[in-house]
Amino acid sequence: MAIFTQQKMSKMPAGKLYMIPSALSEHSVYTPGRHELEVIHSLRLFLAERAKTARHYIATTLPPYKQQEIDVLELPKHGDDGTVKDFIKKIQSGKNGGFLSEAGCPGIADPGAEVVSQAYSAGIEVVPLVGPSSILLALMASGMSGQHFCFKGYLPQDKTKLAQVLVSMEAESARTDCTQIWIETPYRNNAMREVCLKTLKAGTRFCIAANLTGPQERIFSAKIKNWQPTKLGDLQKTPAIFLMYAGSEPTRQ
Amino acid sequence: MAIFTQQKMSKMPAGKLYMIPSALSEHSVYTPGRHELEVIHSLRLFLAERAKTARHYIATTLPPYKQQEIDVLELPKHGDDGTVKDFIKKIQSGKNGGFLSEAGCPGIADPGAEVVSQAYSAGIEVVPLVGPSSILLALMASGMSGQHFCFKGYLPQDKTKLAQVLVSMEAESARTDCTQIWIETPYRNNAMREVCLKTLKAGTRFCIAANLTGPQERIFSAKIKNWQPTKLGDLQKTPAIFLMYAGSEPTRQ
Repeated sequence: MAIFTQQKMSKMPAGKLYMIPSALSEHSVYTPGRHELEVIHSLRLFLAERAKTARHYIATTLPPYKQQEIDVLELPKHGDDGTVKDFIKKIQSGKNGGFLSEAGCPGIADPGAEVVSQAYSAGIEVVPLVGPSSILLALMASGMSGQHFCFKGYLPQDKTKLAQVLVSMEAESARTDCTQIWIETPYRNNAMREVCLKTLKAGTRFCIAANLTGPQERIFSAKIKNWQPTKLGDLQKTPAIFLMYAGSEPTRQ
Repeated sequence: MAIFTQQKMSKMPAGKLYMIPSALSEHSVYTPGRHELEVIHSLRLFLAERAKTARHYIATTLPPYKQQEIDVLELPKHGDDGTVKDFIKKIQSGKNGGFLSEAGCPGIADPGAEVVSQAYSAGIEVVPLVGPSSILLALMASGMSGQHFCFKGYLPQDKTKLAQVLVSMEAESARTDCTQIWIETPYRNNAMREVCLKTLKAGTRFCIAANLTGPQERIFSAKIKNWQPTKLGDLQKTPAIFLMYAGSEPTRQ
Protein backbone atom coordinates (compact mmCIF):
# COMPACT_ATOMS: atom_id res chain seq x y z
CA MET A 1 0.00 0.00 0.00
CA ALA A 2 2.83 2.37 0.89
CA ILE A 3 4.42 1.72 -2.50
CA PHE A 4 1.12 2.32 -4.24
CA THR A 5 0.65 5.63 -2.39
CA GLN A 6 4.16 6.71 -3.31
CA GLN A 7 3.59 5.83 -6.96
CA LYS A 8 0.30 7.66 -6.85
CA MET A 9 1.93 10.73 -5.40
CA SER A 10 4.79 10.72 -7.86
CA LYS A 11 2.68 10.04 -10.93
CA MET A 12 -1.10 9.91 -11.12
CA PRO A 13 -2.42 7.43 -13.70
CA ALA A 14 -3.69 9.22 -16.81
CA GLY A 15 -7.39 10.05 -17.01
CA LYS A 16 -9.76 9.02 -19.78
CA LEU A 17 -11.22 10.97 -22.68
CA TYR A 18 -15.00 10.55 -22.89
CA MET A 19 -16.70 11.30 -26.21
CA ILE A 20 -20.08 12.70 -25.15
CA PRO A 21 -23.01 12.93 -27.57
CA SER A 22 -25.52 15.73 -26.95
CA ALA A 23 -29.13 16.35 -27.99
CA LEU A 24 -29.74 16.98 -31.70
CA SER A 25 -31.77 20.12 -30.99
CA GLU A 26 -32.99 22.23 -28.11
CA HIS A 27 -36.44 20.64 -28.04
CA SER A 28 -35.28 17.07 -28.61
CA VAL A 29 -37.11 14.32 -26.72
CA TYR A 30 -33.70 12.76 -26.01
CA THR A 31 -32.15 12.82 -22.55
CA PRO A 32 -29.05 10.81 -21.60
CA GLY A 33 -29.39 7.46 -19.85
CA ARG A 34 -28.15 6.70 -16.34
CA HIS A 35 -24.57 5.82 -17.28
CA GLU A 36 -24.11 8.86 -19.54
CA LEU A 37 -25.43 11.11 -16.76
CA GLU A 38 -23.06 9.54 -14.24
CA VAL A 39 -20.10 10.24 -16.52
CA ILE A 40 -21.13 13.84 -17.34
CA HIS A 41 -21.69 14.53 -13.65
CA SER A 42 -18.34 13.02 -12.63
CA LEU A 43 -16.35 15.30 -14.95
CA ARG A 44 -15.00 18.79 -14.23
CA LEU A 45 -13.00 19.19 -17.44
CA PHE A 46 -14.51 19.55 -20.92
CA LEU A 47 -13.42 20.53 -24.40
CA ALA A 48 -16.21 21.64 -26.71
CA GLU A 49 -16.78 22.70 -30.29
CA ARG A 50 -18.51 25.71 -28.69
CA ALA A 51 -18.26 26.28 -24.94
CA LYS A 52 -21.56 28.14 -24.61
CA THR A 53 -23.63 25.37 -26.21
CA ALA A 54 -21.81 22.70 -24.20
CA ARG A 55 -22.41 24.54 -20.91
CA HIS A 56 -26.08 24.90 -21.83
CA TYR A 57 -26.38 21.18 -22.64
CA ILE A 58 -24.57 20.14 -19.46
CA ALA A 59 -26.94 22.38 -17.45
CA THR A 60 -29.96 20.52 -18.91
CA THR A 61 -28.64 17.29 -17.34
CA LEU A 62 -28.97 18.88 -13.85
CA PRO A 63 -25.35 18.34 -12.77
CA PRO A 64 -24.30 18.33 -9.09
CA TYR A 65 -21.80 21.18 -9.76
CA LYS A 66 -22.12 24.88 -10.54
CA GLN A 67 -21.02 26.20 -13.93
CA GLN A 68 -18.07 28.04 -12.35
CA GLU A 69 -16.79 24.75 -10.88
CA ILE A 70 -16.08 23.24 -14.30
CA ASP A 71 -13.57 24.05 -17.04
CA VAL A 72 -15.04 24.12 -20.53
CA LEU A 73 -12.30 24.81 -23.07
CA GLU A 74 -13.28 25.72 -26.61
CA LEU A 75 -11.82 24.09 -29.71
CA PRO A 76 -10.10 26.80 -31.78
CA LYS A 77 -11.91 27.44 -35.07
CA HIS A 78 -8.76 27.27 -37.19
CA GLY A 79 -5.64 25.23 -36.45
CA ASP A 80 -4.63 24.58 -32.85
CA ASP A 81 -3.61 27.43 -30.57
CA GLY A 82 -2.51 24.97 -27.88
CA THR A 83 -5.98 24.41 -26.39
CA VAL A 84 -6.18 20.75 -27.43
CA LYS A 85 -2.62 20.11 -26.16
CA ASP A 86 -3.52 21.77 -22.86
CA PHE A 87 -6.67 19.61 -22.57
CA ILE A 88 -4.72 16.42 -23.36
CA LYS A 89 -2.02 17.36 -20.81
CA LYS A 90 -4.64 17.80 -18.08
CA ILE A 91 -5.98 14.32 -18.86
CA GLN A 92 -2.44 12.90 -18.85
CA SER A 93 -1.92 14.36 -15.41
CA GLY A 94 -4.86 12.32 -14.05
CA LYS A 95 -8.11 14.21 -14.74
CA ASN A 96 -10.86 12.68 -16.85
CA GLY A 97 -12.05 14.91 -19.70
CA GLY A 98 -15.13 15.03 -21.92
CA PHE A 99 -15.44 16.22 -25.51
CA LEU A 100 -18.73 17.58 -26.89
CA SER A 101 -19.58 18.85 -30.36
CA GLU A 102 -22.44 21.24 -31.15
CA ALA A 103 -25.06 18.48 -31.45
CA GLY A 104 -25.19 14.71 -31.77
CA CYS A 105 -22.16 12.41 -31.79
CA PRO A 106 -18.78 14.15 -31.64
CA GLY A 107 -16.44 13.17 -34.45
CA ILE A 108 -19.27 12.10 -36.75
CA ALA A 109 -20.00 14.80 -39.36
CA ASP A 110 -18.62 17.00 -36.58
CA PRO A 111 -15.21 17.91 -35.09
CA GLY A 112 -13.62 15.52 -32.60
CA ALA A 113 -11.47 13.08 -34.60
CA GLU A 114 -8.29 15.12 -34.19
CA VAL A 115 -8.77 15.31 -30.40
CA VAL A 116 -9.17 11.52 -30.23
CA SER A 117 -6.15 11.05 -32.45
CA GLN A 118 -4.02 13.21 -30.11
CA ALA A 119 -5.36 11.32 -27.09
CA TYR A 120 -4.12 7.96 -28.47
CA SER A 121 -0.73 9.52 -29.27
CA ALA A 122 -0.53 10.57 -25.60
CA GLY A 123 -1.44 7.06 -24.41
CA ILE A 124 -4.89 8.10 -23.20
CA GLU A 125 -7.85 5.72 -23.20
CA VAL A 126 -10.87 6.92 -25.22
CA VAL A 127 -14.41 5.99 -24.14
CA PRO A 128 -17.36 6.70 -26.47
CA LEU A 129 -20.77 7.22 -24.86
CA VAL A 130 -24.14 6.25 -26.35
CA GLY A 131 -26.25 9.08 -27.76
CA PRO A 132 -28.17 10.41 -30.75
CA SER A 133 -26.77 10.33 -34.28
CA SER A 134 -29.12 11.67 -36.94
CA ILE A 135 -27.35 9.48 -39.50
CA LEU A 136 -28.07 6.25 -37.62
CA LEU A 137 -31.61 7.25 -36.64
CA ALA A 138 -32.39 8.05 -40.28
CA LEU A 139 -30.93 4.74 -41.46
CA MET A 140 -32.96 2.79 -38.87
CA ALA A 141 -36.14 4.49 -40.07
CA SER A 142 -35.40 4.27 -43.80
CA GLY A 143 -36.24 0.64 -44.49
CA MET A 144 -33.03 0.52 -46.54
CA SER A 145 -30.11 -1.88 -46.20
CA GLY A 146 -28.18 -1.44 -42.97
CA GLN A 147 -25.82 -4.26 -43.93
CA HIS A 148 -23.72 -1.93 -46.06
CA PHE A 149 -23.99 1.86 -46.04
CA CYS A 150 -21.96 4.96 -46.83
CA PHE A 151 -22.17 8.44 -45.35
CA LYS A 152 -20.93 11.02 -47.86
CA GLY A 153 -21.37 14.32 -45.99
CA TYR A 154 -22.28 17.27 -48.24
CA LEU A 155 -22.79 16.88 -52.00
CA PRO A 156 -22.00 19.62 -54.57
CA GLN A 157 -24.24 22.71 -54.48
CA ASP A 158 -24.41 23.29 -58.23
CA LYS A 159 -27.57 21.56 -59.50
CA THR A 160 -25.97 20.07 -62.61
CA LYS A 161 -23.01 18.70 -60.66
CA LEU A 162 -25.37 17.52 -57.91
CA ALA A 163 -27.46 15.56 -60.43
CA GLN A 164 -24.29 13.96 -61.83
CA VAL A 165 -23.13 12.93 -58.35
CA LEU A 166 -26.58 11.54 -57.48
CA VAL A 167 -26.60 9.42 -60.65
CA SER A 168 -23.14 8.09 -59.84
CA MET A 169 -24.15 7.36 -56.21
CA GLU A 170 -27.26 5.57 -57.46
CA ALA A 171 -25.14 3.40 -59.78
CA GLU A 172 -22.75 2.64 -56.91
CA SER A 173 -25.69 1.72 -54.66
CA ALA A 174 -27.00 -0.72 -57.27
CA ARG A 175 -23.53 -2.18 -57.93
CA THR A 176 -22.38 -2.59 -54.30
CA ASP A 177 -25.83 -2.99 -52.69
CA CYS A 178 -25.17 -0.11 -50.27
CA THR A 179 -27.38 2.60 -48.84
CA GLN A 180 -26.12 6.13 -49.58
CA ILE A 181 -26.56 8.77 -46.88
CA TRP A 182 -25.86 12.52 -47.13
CA ILE A 183 -26.75 15.89 -45.62
CA GLU A 184 -27.53 19.38 -46.84
CA THR A 185 -27.67 22.82 -45.25
CA PRO A 186 -31.32 23.44 -44.26
CA TYR A 187 -31.98 26.32 -46.67
CA ARG A 188 -31.13 24.07 -49.62
CA ASN A 189 -33.21 21.07 -48.46
CA ASN A 190 -36.19 21.83 -50.73
CA ALA A 191 -33.87 22.14 -53.74
CA MET A 192 -32.17 18.84 -52.79
CA ARG A 193 -35.55 17.05 -52.66
CA GLU A 194 -36.51 18.53 -56.04
CA VAL A 195 -33.27 17.45 -57.74
CA CYS A 196 -33.48 13.95 -56.20
CA LEU A 197 -37.09 13.42 -57.32
CA LYS A 198 -36.19 14.57 -60.86
CA THR A 199 -32.89 12.69 -61.11
CA LEU A 200 -33.23 9.32 -59.43
CA LYS A 201 -34.83 6.28 -61.08
CA ALA A 202 -38.47 5.38 -60.44
CA GLY A 203 -37.47 2.15 -58.65
CA THR A 204 -34.84 3.69 -56.35
CA ARG A 205 -35.85 3.98 -52.71
CA PHE A 206 -35.49 7.52 -51.35
CA CYS A 207 -35.87 8.77 -47.77
CA ILE A 208 -35.83 12.14 -46.05
CA ALA A 209 -35.64 12.27 -42.25
CA ALA A 210 -36.19 15.78 -40.86
CA ASN A 211 -36.08 17.14 -37.31
CA LEU A 212 -35.04 13.78 -35.85
CA THR A 213 -35.93 13.44 -32.14
CA GLY A 214 -37.52 16.91 -32.38
CA PRO A 215 -41.16 17.74 -31.72
CA GLN A 216 -41.81 17.98 -35.46
CA GLU A 217 -39.97 14.88 -36.60
CA ARG A 218 -40.97 13.98 -40.16
CA ILE A 219 -39.70 10.91 -42.00
CA PHE A 220 -40.81 9.37 -45.26
CA SER A 221 -39.30 6.58 -47.29
CA ALA A 222 -40.58 5.14 -50.57
CA LYS A 223 -39.54 4.39 -54.12
CA ILE A 224 -39.17 7.57 -56.19
CA LYS A 225 -42.32 6.70 -58.17
CA ASN A 226 -44.34 6.87 -54.95
CA TRP A 227 -43.04 10.28 -53.78
CA GLN A 228 -45.08 13.43 -54.30
CA PRO A 229 -43.03 16.61 -54.98
CA THR A 230 -44.13 18.31 -51.76
CA LYS A 231 -44.23 15.24 -49.48
CA LEU A 232 -43.06 16.23 -45.95
CA GLY A 233 -43.85 19.91 -46.69
CA ASP A 234 -41.42 22.80 -46.45
CA LEU A 235 -37.95 21.62 -45.39
CA GLN A 236 -36.35 25.08 -45.61
CA LYS A 237 -35.52 25.50 -41.94
CA THR A 238 -35.23 21.93 -40.68
CA PRO A 239 -32.12 19.79 -40.34
CA ALA A 240 -32.56 16.77 -42.60
CA ILE A 241 -30.80 13.60 -43.65
CA PHE A 242 -31.18 12.14 -47.15
CA LEU A 243 -30.86 8.47 -48.10
CA MET A 244 -31.15 6.39 -51.24
CA TYR A 245 -30.95 2.72 -52.02
CA ALA A 246 -30.89 1.17 -55.49
CA GLY A 247 -29.74 -2.32 -54.49
CA SER A 248 -31.80 -5.48 -54.24
CA GLU A 249 -34.75 -5.43 -51.84
CA PRO A 250 -33.93 -5.59 -48.10
CA THR A 251 -33.56 -9.17 -46.94
CA ARG A 252 -32.93 -10.77 -43.56
CA GLN A 253 -29.26 -9.92 -42.93
CA MET B 1 -67.19 15.99 -31.29
CA ALA B 2 -69.94 13.56 -32.20
CA ILE B 3 -68.50 13.23 -35.68
CA PHE B 4 -65.01 12.70 -34.28
CA THR B 5 -66.27 9.98 -31.95
CA GLN B 6 -68.04 8.28 -34.80
CA GLN B 7 -64.92 8.42 -36.97
CA LYS B 8 -62.89 7.10 -34.10
CA MET B 9 -65.28 4.24 -33.59
CA SER B 10 -65.47 3.34 -37.26
CA LYS B 11 -61.72 3.62 -37.86
CA MET B 12 -58.99 4.12 -35.28
CA PRO B 13 -56.02 6.13 -36.55
CA ALA B 14 -53.05 3.87 -37.32
CA GLY B 15 -50.42 3.35 -34.64
CA LYS B 16 -46.71 3.98 -35.00
CA LEU B 17 -43.79 1.61 -35.47
CA TYR B 18 -40.99 2.31 -32.99
CA MET B 19 -37.51 1.03 -33.84
CA ILE B 20 -36.05 0.19 -30.41
CA PRO B 21 -32.30 -0.27 -29.87
CA SER B 22 -31.27 -2.63 -27.08
CA ALA B 23 -28.08 -3.11 -25.05
CA LEU B 24 -25.06 -4.46 -26.96
CA SER B 25 -24.44 -7.17 -24.38
CA GLU B 26 -25.84 -8.53 -21.14
CA HIS B 27 -23.36 -6.63 -18.97
CA SER B 28 -23.43 -3.39 -20.93
CA VAL B 29 -23.28 -0.14 -18.94
CA TYR B 30 -26.00 1.22 -21.24
CA THR B 31 -29.55 1.74 -20.03
CA PRO B 32 -32.19 3.62 -22.03
CA GLY B 33 -32.92 7.29 -21.34
CA ARG B 34 -36.22 8.65 -20.04
CA HIS B 35 -37.96 8.98 -23.42
CA GLU B 36 -36.93 5.52 -24.62
CA LEU B 37 -38.20 4.00 -21.33
CA GLU B 38 -41.52 5.85 -21.68
CA VAL B 39 -41.99 4.43 -25.18
CA ILE B 40 -41.02 0.86 -24.22
CA HIS B 41 -43.34 1.01 -21.23
CA SER B 42 -46.25 2.37 -23.26
CA LEU B 43 -46.18 -0.51 -25.76
CA ARG B 44 -47.93 -3.87 -25.48
CA LEU B 45 -47.06 -5.15 -28.97
CA PHE B 46 -43.57 -6.07 -30.12
CA LEU B 47 -41.91 -7.86 -33.02
CA ALA B 48 -38.42 -9.16 -32.32
CA GLU B 49 -35.57 -10.90 -34.07
CA ARG B 50 -35.77 -13.34 -31.13
CA ALA B 51 -38.69 -13.12 -28.71
CA LYS B 52 -36.81 -14.57 -25.72
CA THR B 53 -33.98 -12.01 -25.89
CA ALA B 54 -36.44 -9.16 -26.43
CA ARG B 55 -38.54 -10.21 -23.42
CA HIS B 56 -35.38 -10.42 -21.33
CA TYR B 57 -34.24 -6.95 -22.43
CA ILE B 58 -37.69 -5.42 -21.84
CA ALA B 59 -37.68 -6.94 -18.34
CA THR B 60 -34.37 -5.18 -17.54
CA THR B 61 -36.12 -1.83 -18.13
CA LEU B 62 -38.53 -2.61 -15.23
CA PRO B 63 -41.76 -2.19 -17.21
CA PRO B 64 -45.12 -1.51 -15.53
CA TYR B 65 -46.63 -4.63 -17.14
CA LYS B 66 -46.20 -8.38 -16.63
CA GLN B 67 -44.65 -10.48 -19.43
CA GLN B 68 -47.99 -12.20 -20.07
CA GLU B 69 -49.63 -8.82 -20.71
CA ILE B 70 -47.53 -8.12 -23.81
CA ASP B 71 -47.39 -9.71 -27.26
CA VAL B 72 -43.87 -10.40 -28.52
CA LEU B 73 -44.03 -11.84 -32.03
CA GLU B 74 -40.89 -13.39 -33.50
CA LEU B 75 -39.54 -12.57 -36.95
CA PRO B 76 -39.51 -15.81 -38.97
CA LYS B 77 -35.95 -16.98 -39.72
CA HIS B 78 -36.61 -17.56 -43.42
CA GLY B 79 -39.10 -15.71 -45.58
CA ASP B 80 -42.33 -14.41 -44.07
CA ASP B 81 -44.92 -16.78 -42.67
CA GLY B 82 -47.37 -13.92 -42.20
CA THR B 83 -45.99 -12.74 -38.84
CA VAL B 84 -44.78 -9.36 -40.18
CA LYS B 85 -48.09 -8.81 -42.01
CA ASP B 86 -49.97 -9.64 -38.82
CA PHE B 87 -47.81 -7.20 -36.83
CA ILE B 88 -48.32 -4.42 -39.42
CA LYS B 89 -52.11 -5.06 -39.45
CA LYS B 90 -52.27 -4.68 -35.68
CA ILE B 91 -50.47 -1.33 -35.97
CA GLN B 92 -52.81 -0.27 -38.80
CA SER B 93 -55.76 -1.02 -36.55
CA GLY B 94 -54.51 1.52 -33.99
CA LYS B 95 -51.92 -0.18 -31.72
CA ASN B 96 -48.38 1.13 -31.49
CA GLY B 97 -45.71 -1.52 -32.06
CA GLY B 98 -42.00 -1.82 -31.31
CA PHE B 99 -39.32 -3.71 -33.22
CA LEU B 100 -36.17 -5.03 -31.50
CA SER B 101 -33.22 -6.91 -32.93
CA GLU B 102 -30.88 -9.15 -30.91
CA ALA B 103 -28.61 -6.30 -29.80
CA GLY B 104 -27.96 -2.68 -30.74
CA CYS B 105 -29.85 -0.73 -33.40
CA PRO B 106 -32.46 -2.70 -35.35
CA GLY B 107 -31.97 -2.54 -39.10
CA ILE B 108 -28.26 -1.74 -38.84
CA ALA B 109 -26.14 -4.84 -39.49
CA ASP B 110 -29.29 -6.53 -38.15
CA PRO B 111 -32.79 -7.39 -39.41
CA GLY B 112 -35.45 -4.71 -39.39
CA ALA B 113 -35.29 -2.94 -42.77
CA GLU B 114 -37.97 -5.13 -44.36
CA VAL B 115 -40.36 -4.48 -41.46
CA VAL B 116 -39.86 -0.71 -41.85
CA SER B 117 -40.34 -1.00 -45.59
CA GLN B 118 -43.67 -2.80 -45.10
CA ALA B 119 -44.74 -0.21 -42.53
CA TYR B 120 -44.31 2.65 -45.05
CA SER B 121 -46.23 0.66 -47.68
CA ALA B 122 -49.08 0.39 -45.15
CA GLY B 123 -48.99 4.14 -44.46
CA ILE B 124 -47.56 3.71 -40.96
CA GLU B 125 -45.27 6.29 -39.35
CA VAL B 126 -41.86 4.97 -38.27
CA VAL B 127 -40.10 6.43 -35.22
CA PRO B 128 -36.45 5.51 -34.51
CA LEU B 129 -35.28 5.66 -30.88
CA VAL B 130 -31.80 6.60 -29.68
CA GLY B 131 -29.58 3.74 -28.51
CA PRO B 132 -26.23 1.99 -28.85
CA SER B 133 -24.67 1.20 -32.22
CA SER B 134 -21.27 -0.45 -32.02
CA ILE B 135 -20.47 0.97 -35.47
CA LEU B 136 -21.01 4.58 -34.38
CA LEU B 137 -19.35 4.12 -30.98
CA ALA B 138 -16.28 2.64 -32.68
CA LEU B 139 -16.14 5.48 -35.22
CA MET B 140 -16.40 8.13 -32.46
CA ALA B 141 -13.50 6.48 -30.61
CA SER B 142 -11.31 5.85 -33.67
CA GLY B 143 -9.91 9.31 -34.31
CA MET B 144 -10.67 8.69 -37.99
CA SER B 145 -12.70 10.84 -40.36
CA GLY B 146 -16.40 10.92 -39.48
CA GLN B 147 -17.10 13.27 -42.42
CA HIS B 148 -17.23 10.34 -44.84
CA PHE B 149 -17.42 6.69 -43.84
CA CYS B 150 -18.55 3.32 -45.16
CA PHE B 151 -19.78 0.27 -43.29
CA LYS B 152 -19.06 -2.90 -45.29
CA GLY B 153 -20.39 -5.65 -43.04
CA TYR B 154 -18.43 -8.93 -43.24
CA LEU B 155 -15.37 -9.32 -45.48
CA PRO B 156 -14.31 -12.60 -47.17
CA GLN B 157 -13.11 -15.40 -44.85
CA ASP B 158 -10.37 -16.74 -47.12
CA LYS B 159 -7.11 -15.05 -46.06
CA THR B 160 -5.87 -14.40 -49.60
CA LYS B 161 -9.19 -12.91 -50.70
CA LEU B 162 -9.41 -10.97 -47.45
CA ALA B 163 -5.98 -9.41 -48.05
CA GLN B 164 -7.03 -8.42 -51.59
CA VAL B 165 -10.23 -6.79 -50.31
CA LEU B 166 -8.33 -4.94 -47.56
CA VAL B 167 -5.85 -3.54 -50.11
CA SER B 168 -8.71 -2.40 -52.32
CA MET B 169 -10.54 -0.82 -49.34
CA GLU B 170 -7.33 0.94 -48.34
CA ALA B 171 -6.94 2.37 -51.85
CA GLU B 172 -10.58 3.50 -51.80
CA SER B 173 -10.07 5.14 -48.39
CA ALA B 174 -7.06 7.07 -49.73
CA ARG B 175 -8.87 8.04 -52.95
CA THR B 176 -12.21 9.11 -51.43
CA ASP B 177 -10.94 10.15 -47.98
CA CYS B 178 -13.41 7.81 -46.25
CA THR B 179 -13.14 5.67 -43.12
CA GLN B 180 -13.79 1.97 -43.76
CA ILE B 181 -15.66 0.00 -41.09
CA TRP B 182 -16.31 -3.74 -40.96
CA ILE B 183 -17.09 -6.63 -38.62
CA GLU B 184 -15.99 -10.21 -38.13
CA THR B 185 -17.36 -13.20 -36.24
CA PRO B 186 -15.61 -13.28 -32.85
CA TYR B 187 -13.71 -16.52 -33.33
CA ARG B 188 -11.96 -15.05 -36.40
CA ASN B 189 -11.07 -11.69 -34.78
CA ASN B 190 -7.45 -12.65 -34.01
CA ALA B 191 -6.93 -13.80 -37.61
CA MET B 192 -8.48 -10.54 -38.88
CA ARG B 193 -6.07 -8.47 -36.77
CA GLU B 194 -3.13 -10.54 -38.02
CA VAL B 195 -4.05 -10.15 -41.69
CA CYS B 196 -4.68 -6.40 -41.27
CA LEU B 197 -1.34 -5.78 -39.55
CA LYS B 198 0.46 -7.73 -42.31
CA THR B 199 -1.45 -6.27 -45.24
CA LEU B 200 -2.13 -2.60 -44.58
CA LYS B 201 0.45 0.15 -45.19
CA ALA B 202 2.58 1.51 -42.34
CA GLY B 203 0.91 4.95 -42.55
CA THR B 204 -2.70 3.68 -42.57
CA ARG B 205 -4.62 4.27 -39.35
CA PHE B 206 -6.18 1.07 -37.95
CA CYS B 207 -8.57 0.65 -35.05
CA ILE B 208 -10.14 -2.25 -33.20
CA ALA B 209 -12.98 -1.59 -30.78
CA ALA B 210 -13.93 -4.65 -28.71
CA ASN B 211 -16.65 -5.24 -26.13
CA LEU B 212 -18.12 -1.75 -26.61
CA THR B 213 -20.14 -0.55 -23.57
CA GLY B 214 -19.18 -3.84 -21.87
CA PRO B 215 -17.21 -4.18 -18.64
CA GLN B 216 -14.09 -5.14 -20.61
CA GLU B 217 -14.27 -2.53 -23.35
CA ARG B 218 -10.96 -2.31 -25.21
CA ILE B 219 -10.25 0.16 -28.00
CA PHE B 220 -6.98 1.05 -29.70
CA SER B 221 -6.34 3.21 -32.72
CA ALA B 222 -2.97 4.03 -34.30
CA LYS B 223 -1.08 3.91 -37.57
CA ILE B 224 -0.15 0.34 -38.54
CA LYS B 225 3.53 1.05 -37.80
CA ASN B 226 2.60 1.75 -34.16
CA TRP B 227 0.57 -1.43 -33.61
CA GLN B 228 2.06 -4.44 -31.82
CA PRO B 229 0.82 -7.85 -33.06
CA THR B 230 -0.88 -8.72 -29.76
CA LYS B 231 -2.14 -5.25 -28.82
CA LEU B 232 -5.57 -5.57 -27.10
CA GLY B 233 -4.83 -9.21 -26.24
CA ASP B 234 -6.96 -12.21 -27.20
CA LEU B 235 -10.02 -11.14 -29.22
CA GLN B 236 -11.28 -14.70 -29.78
CA LYS B 237 -14.51 -14.41 -27.84
CA THR B 238 -15.29 -10.71 -27.98
CA PRO B 239 -17.49 -8.82 -30.42
CA ALA B 240 -15.29 -6.33 -32.26
CA ILE B 241 -15.47 -3.61 -34.88
CA PHE B 242 -12.57 -2.91 -37.26
CA LEU B 243 -11.79 0.43 -38.89
CA MET B 244 -9.15 1.81 -41.22
CA TYR B 245 -8.40 5.20 -42.68
CA ALA B 246 -5.81 5.96 -45.34
CA GLY B 247 -7.00 9.48 -46.24
CA SER B 248 -5.47 12.79 -45.26
CA GLU B 249 -5.17 13.52 -41.53
CA PRO B 250 -8.39 14.39 -39.68
CA THR B 251 -9.15 18.07 -39.95
CA ARG B 252 -11.83 20.29 -38.47
CA GLN B 253 -14.93 19.29 -40.52
